[in-house]
Amino acid sequence: MAEARVSLARLRDFITLALTRLGLPAADAQIVGGLMAQAELQGSDGHGVIRLLPYARRIRAGGINLMPDIKVLQERPGMALLDGDNAMGHLVMQRAAQLAIDKARTCGIAWVGSRLSNHAGPASLYARMPMAHDMIGLYFAVGNANHLPPWGGLDMLLSTNPIAVAVPAGAEPPVVLDMATTVAAYGKVKAKAQRGEQMPIGWMIDRLGQPLTDPKRAEEGFLMPIGGYKGYGLALIVGLLAGTLNGAAMGSEVIDFNHDDTTTTNTGQAIMAIDLSAFGDVAGFKARVDQLVRELRASERLPGVERIWLPGEQSHERREANQRDGIPIGAGLLQQLDAFAAELGIPRLQAP
Amino acid sequence: MAEARVSLARLRDFITLALTRLGLPAADAQIVGGLMAQAELQGSDGHGVIRLLPYARRIRAGGINLMPDIKVLQERPGMALLDGDNAMGHLVMQRAAQLAIDKARTCGIAWVGSRLSNHAGPASLYARMPMAHDMIGLYFAVGNANHLPPWGGLDMLLSTNPIAVAVPAGAEPPVVLDMATTVAAYGKVKAKAQRGEQMPIGWMIDRLGQPLTDPKRAEEGFLMPIGGYKGYGLALIVGLLAGTLNGAAMGSEVIDFNHDDTTTTNTGQAIMAIDLSAFGDVAGFKARVDQLVRELRASERLPGVERIWLPGEQSHERREANQRDGIPIGAGLLQQLDAFAAELGIPRLQAP
Repeated sequence: MAEARVSLARLRDFITLALTRLGLPAADAQIVGGLMAQAELQGSDGHGVIRLLPYARRIRAGGINLMPDIKVLQERPGMALLDGDNAMGHLVMQRAAQLAIDKARTCGIAWVGSRLSNHAGPASLYARMPMAHDMIGLYFAVGNANHLPPWGGLDMLLSTNPIAVAVPAGAEPPVVLDMATTVAAYGKVKAKAQRGEQMPIGWMIDRLGQPLTDPKRAEEGFLMPIGGYKGYGLALIVGLLAGTLNGAAMGSEVIDFNHDDTTTTNTGQAIMAIDLSAFGDVAGFKARVDQLVRELRASERLPGVERIWLPGEQSHERREANQRDGIPIGAGLLQQLDAFAAELGIPRLQAP
Repeated sequence: MAEARVSLARLRDFITLALTRLGLPAADAQIVGGLMAQAELQGSDGHGVIRLLPYARRIRAGGINLMPDIKVLQERPGMALLDGDNAMGHLVMQRAAQLAIDKARTCGIAWVGSRLSNHAGPASLYARMPMAHDMIGLYFAVGNANHLPPWGGLDMLLSTNPIAVAVPAGAEPPVVLDMATTVAAYGKVKAKAQRGEQMPIGWMIDRLGQPLTDPKRAEEGFLMPIGGYKGYGLALIVGLLAGTLNGAAMGSEVIDFNHDDTTTTNTGQAIMAIDLSAFGDVAGFKARVDQLVRELRASERLPGVERIWLPGEQSHERREANQRDGIPIGAGLLQQLDAFAAELGIPRLQAP
């Protein structure tokens, strides 16, 4: 079986139908399916359709509330704290983003945190949402498995806790940073394992401090933070803002969702929206971003460097290419999805 | 001449008197002197009294407005944009922090940005201010000289753009991250030069990509971002939030204040306050932070590691030690300050 290419609509409908068969109400399945397909469209392959099977495992084990009552626990004009009621994280974060956007219209900025949420896919999905309203988006999350010890330590008490920030531009693609506070996200380790590839030196070390490059041995070691103690500090701060502040899991409370399908993860996330119009002329801001982007791109380059990239520019090109040519699904993953479709009694992702 | 130790009050009064002689109104000189002494107290030696001479040079050259009208340009319930009127940055940021704290009391969170500000010392000074009001503080700034090219590039279009976040704890010291988005801040390079020390490999490279370790040759090379392209992305995002969003200088607009004493720097900064009480019980939050801090500190350690540190814990210990034993001022710096005191006709920092 070879790699397949499928349209965004087909991928979305496939995931949506699968989630419906797993028991999600149709409207919720559509939201999650749409966001998972968007993740795949932008090349976030560690957070896209590859997650369907682990999600299914958790849903079937009773680890997700399929009929959640997502509600506001605390509220001020510029903030809210959501109780996700153990729903699929995509549903909680879609609601959080909408609420942050609404509140930022009045306050200029807004912050919405969550507790009792779950894994919600790539951080940039949510950081990007305010952009359609001429707002900057920021997103912070506690990862769903600890792979990072404190600097100098061995106990894995921190996760890859990602940061995403999306800044609208004018004619240029938006500037979208989406980064784990570790050198590599754990989803990328899983994707390497899936493809049977080795990891570069620097992604992980083992408990003796030696480089670990075989993704199948990932559980014997831990991820490295960016910039040493600085990345440790960033991972901790993101965890305090997205987890501890919201009364969500942090440190040893974090559930490893790779090995535990039933315990409530109590995932914490936070999204922030900054309304550009509160700061002045929106078109003027976008023109300044365009100018800055062009200046950076035109920089003289180190020998051997073909092009200067802006954060989010490669995802932007991937999104356009995948929209045009279809989204590539690797042969191994496609085989798993076909088997899963047969099990659920739904049509395969790709027509035979 | 040997290293001296001076009290916080003595250092503050010395700087304040010097600034008064340079033309700052007494009340403004007191604010700046107090903050510069606080910087030195916490061990931020790249941002403390070492800056008095460059500030004096800029003030004498007419590069600072000594009678500024710092005013609110844009305002919403949860945000404000300040026009710093080219004042000393400390004055602008002190005002910004106060405004953010006031607004966060109502909105739950608040964000105050600045344009036409100037260098304001270490980022953590301002991120720490909301803590006295049971708030988390965040601070972002555009650095005052570009030392960082885009990833893969040679044109120094970005600065070390720092991030600081201060999170209150209960019985434990607060968690305070204060980091440049480069492996080392440029102030640390200057401090190495001041002390006649070499830099570690990894702080800077030259235009051929070779390690640069002599801080006296710093102008021939550039700083390295943390985590490679990730640090480049962070520096850019901080610059967009603290600079571009506020209509402050960014990219090629940034003035190198090491070489230009007269052009208005149009420095951009941003401070954010998050009111803990908006999210729930404050004491409960602080207890959760204490628990997390203790958990991290108790981690099993890599061979050779004596202690796990939390972000800000070393500064905290430095602050307590310096309060007790006096603030150490290196012999070289003391000599410069003595000469400067003689020139201004004010008493030396240390009584003879």
